[in-house]
Amino acid sequence: MYRTHTCGELRIEQVGQEVTLAGWIQTVRKFGSINFVDLRDRYGITQLLFSESLNARLDEQPLGREFVIQATGVVTERSSKNKNIPTGDIEITVSDFKILNAAKTPPFTIQDDTDGGDELRMKYRFLDLRRNSVRKNLELRYQVGRAARNYLHTAGFLDVETPFLINSTPEGARDFLVPSRMNPNQFYGLPQSPQTFKQLLMVSGYDRYYQIVKCFRDEDLRADRQPEFTQIDCEMSFVEQEDILNTFEDMLKHIFKEIKGIEFNEPFPRMTFDDAMEFYGNDKPDIRFDMKLVNLTGTVQGKGFKVFDEAELVVAINAKGCSEYTRKQLDELTDWVKRPQIGMSGLIYARYNTDGSIKSSVDKFFDEEQLKLWAQACKAEPGDLMLVLAGKEERTRKAASELRLEMGERLGLRNKNEFKPLWVIDFPLFEYSEEDNRWVARHHPFTSPKPEHIALMDDVSQYAKIKANAYDIVLNGTEIGGGSIRIFQRDLQQKMFAALGMSKEEAEHKFGFLMGAFEYGAPPHGGIAFGFDRLCSLLGGSESIRDFIAFPKNNSGRDVMLDAPSEIDQKQLDELRIKLVRE
Amino acid sequence: MYRTHTCGELRIEQVGQEVTLAGWIQTVRKFGSINFVDLRDRYGITQLLFSESLNARLDEQPLGREFVIQATGVVTERSSKNKNIPTGDIEITVSDFKILNAAKTPPFTIQDDTDGGDELRMKYRFLDLRRNSVRKNLELRYQVGRAARNYLHTAGFLDVETPFLINSTPEGARDFLVPSRMNPNQFYGLPQSPQTFKQLLMVSGYDRYYQIVKCFRDEDLRADRQPEFTQIDCEMSFVEQEDILNTFEDMLKHIFKEIKGIEFNEPFPRMTFDDAMEFYGNDKPDIRFDMKLVNLTGTVQGKGFKVFDEAELVVAINAKGCSEYTRKQLDELTDWVKRPQIGMSGLIYARYNTDGSIKSSVDKFFDEEQLKLWAQACKAEPGDLMLVLAGKEERTRKAASELRLEMGERLGLRNKNEFKPLWVIDFPLFEYSEEDNRWVARHHPFTSPKPEHIALMDDVSQYAKIKANAYDIVLNGTEIGGGSIRIFQRDLQQKMFAALGMSKEEAEHKFGFLMGAFEYGAPPHGGIAFGFDRLCSLLGGSESIRDFIAFPKNNSGRDVMLDAPSEIDQKQLDELRIKLVRE
Repeated sequence: MYRTHTCGELRIEQVGQEVTLAGWIQTVRKFGSINFVDLRDRYGITQLLFSESLNARLDEQPLGREFVIQATGVVTERSSKNKNIPTGDIEITVSDFKILNAAKTPPFTIQDDTDGGDELRMKYRFLDLRRNSVRKNLELRYQVGRAARNYLHTAGFLDVETPFLINSTPEGARDFLVPSRMNPNQFYGLPQSPQTFKQLLMVSGYDRYYQIVKCFRDEDLRADRQPEFTQIDCEMSFVEQEDILNTFEDMLKHIFKEIKGIEFNEPFPRMTFDDAMEFYGNDKPDIRFDMKLVNLTGTVQGKGFKVFDEAELVVAINAKGCSEYTRKQLDELTDWVKRPQIGMSGLIYARYNTDGSIKSSVDKFFDEEQLKLWAQACKAEPGDLMLVLAGKEERTRKAASELRLEMGERLGLRNKNEFKPLWVIDFPLFEYSEEDNRWVARHHPFTSPKPEHIALMDDVSQYAKIKANAYDIVLNGTEIGGGSIRIFQRDLQQKMFAALGMSKEEAEHKFGFLMGAFEYGAPPHGGIAFGFDRLCSLLGGSESIRDFIAFPKNNSGRDVMLDAPSEIDQKQLDELRIKLVRE
Repeated sequence: MYRTHTCGELRIEQVGQEVTLAGWIQTVRKFGSINFVDLRDRYGITQLLFSESLNARLDEQPLGREFVIQATGVVTERSSKNKNIPTGDIEITVSDFKILNAAKTPPFTIQDDTDGGDELRMKYRFLDLRRNSVRKNLELRYQVGRAARNYLHTAGFLDVETPFLINSTPEGARDFLVPSRMNPNQFYGLPQSPQTFKQLLMVSGYDRYYQIVKCFRDEDLRADRQPEFTQIDCEMSFVEQEDILNTFEDMLKHIFKEIKGIEFNEPFPRMTFDDAMEFYGNDKPDIRFDMKLVNLTGTVQGKGFKVFDEAELVVAINAKGCSEYTRKQLDELTDWVKRPQIGMSGLIYARYNTDGSIKSSVDKFFDEEQLKLWAQACKAEPGDLMLVLAGKEERTRKAASELRLEMGERLGLRNKNEFKPLWVIDFPLFEYSEEDNRWVARHHPFTSPKPEHIALMDDVSQYAKIKANAYDIVLNGTEIGGGSIRIFQRDLQQKMFAALGMSKEEAEHKFGFLMGAFEYGAPPHGGIAFGFDRLCSLLGGSESIRDFIAFPKNNSGRDVMLDAPSEIDQKQLDELRIKLVRE
């Protein structure tokens, strides 16, 4: 036995006991002739006081930071107590010790505020993981998973494992592929999600399925996207959208209560996709603050201001209490909307001064009476600042959405300790892909159109109007999950594939097994999948999912600690009957 | 809302209530003018009685097996109750119904004893999964996983997800490989186990880690091996072998209690590897029955019987109570040991008759006095039958082990409802691979030799004597888990890689990250991994792990339902910069 207790559990009650602890040396310091060590493990820190009789041994075998030692001694009451840590009332008067493993000086400090840069910490991820802040993230991740499992268990869901070596059926994102040695020239694909399998489980009568499962997408990585990521994947039979929303709203409430101690007594608000786009400019509104987008197009056009008159959309937000913004602040905001990521040509503003006057950057075209109409539309009051964008509809709406979030940030309205979930519902079934020059599934091809819109599928000119029984759950402006009621009839599924431009043969080749299954008694069903990494990062108050993944990859899909991926042996290539194409 | 209740929950108390059920039609039958349907879902079966007023509609829309329907009606007490099912006291007098989805006639019956062959059931796995017996297996799997998680949670283990896209480091089994598009000509490997990651987590101070996780091995598939399989993977810091054995013995006891209602009040027995080989002829003894192997070499040699005199090993088992075996039975057994899988040239027997006489098949060489010595060694008594094998040591021991199991089977001593766990300990560190013409790690290269044997690592002639701190947990003759105390010092790990014939460069290239980690304060640690599929199949009383996997692959690594793996598009190959080698 290496230890009788952990470094986090001894208290004043144990004074007088002989104990053995083991752990890492956080600090070594000497007061006069007495050596003190802070010994650390996952559970806490305990102070060790080395008896003077050990000084000779300590001179011979000096202790250093991150050494792993075992120490035996008596629990003693401290004269100067440390109220900041639970073990702060006691220390161990060490009578014997053993160095279990020495340590080189770590390349960065093992502390919450480390001096290590991103690259270095990723290379030495096993040291980065020692930091309290990182460990707390992974502990939170474990607790979130456990809370989800407990809720789903009580609600009658079964965790069923689905396979990882499946077929490649690229629809949307790119699959990772795995050459099969036993089936030469054939490949498995790694799943982007267990979508078809969970639907098959519904056909099999499993009624309520879940899995916390790795998924894979071979996409170019944007910041904070990982080639492998984890979903809480769920599916239910004999349900309508309402049943699913209620079930998983309850799951999230359970998680919030368990993890954050927050109780939601009201139902989560719901918003249609159309409203989200109109009032927030995007499909994942951050509703921690109001500042809705106001369409001023009708109000402002025809007054001779070319920028407005030529615009497809003129949209304003009301920055409450910002009428005193300085010229410099406004210039800064103007530069901000002109950045290529936002891409606007300028920003128009109108101050509603506290004295009741309104002054705008376009006074030449709009008199105070006109501006009062703006204020009315924006529900602006004296003290407020209206910010107006104009241009092509899509870009302008997107820019207004970004500007709203930026202003929310600047005004401190996006408190990461405040949680505002929102269901966004009634998504369009299709969206037009300019890139592929065809209609694609907005959610995925298994999503059911609203029954009353099925007839519109016969007429491509109506595609934009078709709504789906699809929904997203949004938390603080981030989508943390989404799902839909599924198609469960072969005919409709076939129609859907055809609408997406798939030939009958292609559809049969790729998804014949699923459509076949629908012919043997498929129940109505639907489900949802949560982005587990993202959910954890939001609950942990972080922007970055990497902080919540034990061994994440960088933006090139590399694990810099392992130096993976890497070249393989010719023998391995030969066995797989593949050849490299070198450039 | 599709239903007010499931098909498993209505009882006599609900008589008079109007309810709506939804599910699959198990059977339709007509008594006189009344139609009866057994409606099935995951939770049970409820009988529906269709009011005569519905007969016209039923004629129009006939119901068939596996149709999915929704039915509304009043709960009624049955006149003839069915005591075999929990809902057998009631039926629903249906006033309205709706066909939610029709069904083609399934290719096999959806019953415990189905008429479908293996191939057909795998092709239509979504129908096979509907069968009660299969669903019960997957429900048991879920319960076993949940029991393990609950135990490990209480014991302070953290579930930490480790990556799937890692480096290929073939050591032993072959890796599945994943070409990287973003890092051309480089490959990820899928993990054969999270071994190095869990060790890194120990270096990171996580103290107690677990994961129920998919692992991958690209090996030629023997019956009942799957290319992807699931492990309960665990690791602990600051532990010795004893701590691990105790912790996971408790976990198994918890699982047995939760799943089977069996309480083990005694500690699991432990046996050294050497004893297992000597007394059972293999390293995973089935101790549900005794019938130990008895070494007769010394007893029988030098009596002029060439078969014995030339043998490396003469070994007997005592088949208790079998002295009356007929000539035919003995011939059958002789044929059995002569099969190529067993490979012996013959079987010698000696009957200890109930009258006290002993007769053997080698009476020419051994008189009754001699045979009494055999009986003494075998602890045979009147009524017993001694079966003797002789030949090359390894083959003969293996054959005796197989014969013992076969006799146990024939004598009904291998009851699948009796559970006899056993720890096998003190495994050799190395074993000699004739194939590779070198010493290989018996467990894996991270396993620690027993400290007192480390010195032997300097002398290759001593390798066979080196024991490891490695252990297996065996249940009813099947290994369900194994692990070891790990090496945690860079020097020793380097020595181990060298002993396995790895150059310093190769070791550094493949496992530099781990040896590097050992230099920054690695704690003593060890762990274990359980074969989850196998554990579930044993608890479920089945020989086959496939019955406990939702979507298993066949012996060619194919999913016959999906028809995976499959050929991929040229575009995909081009993106990965690989070419196929066609034959």
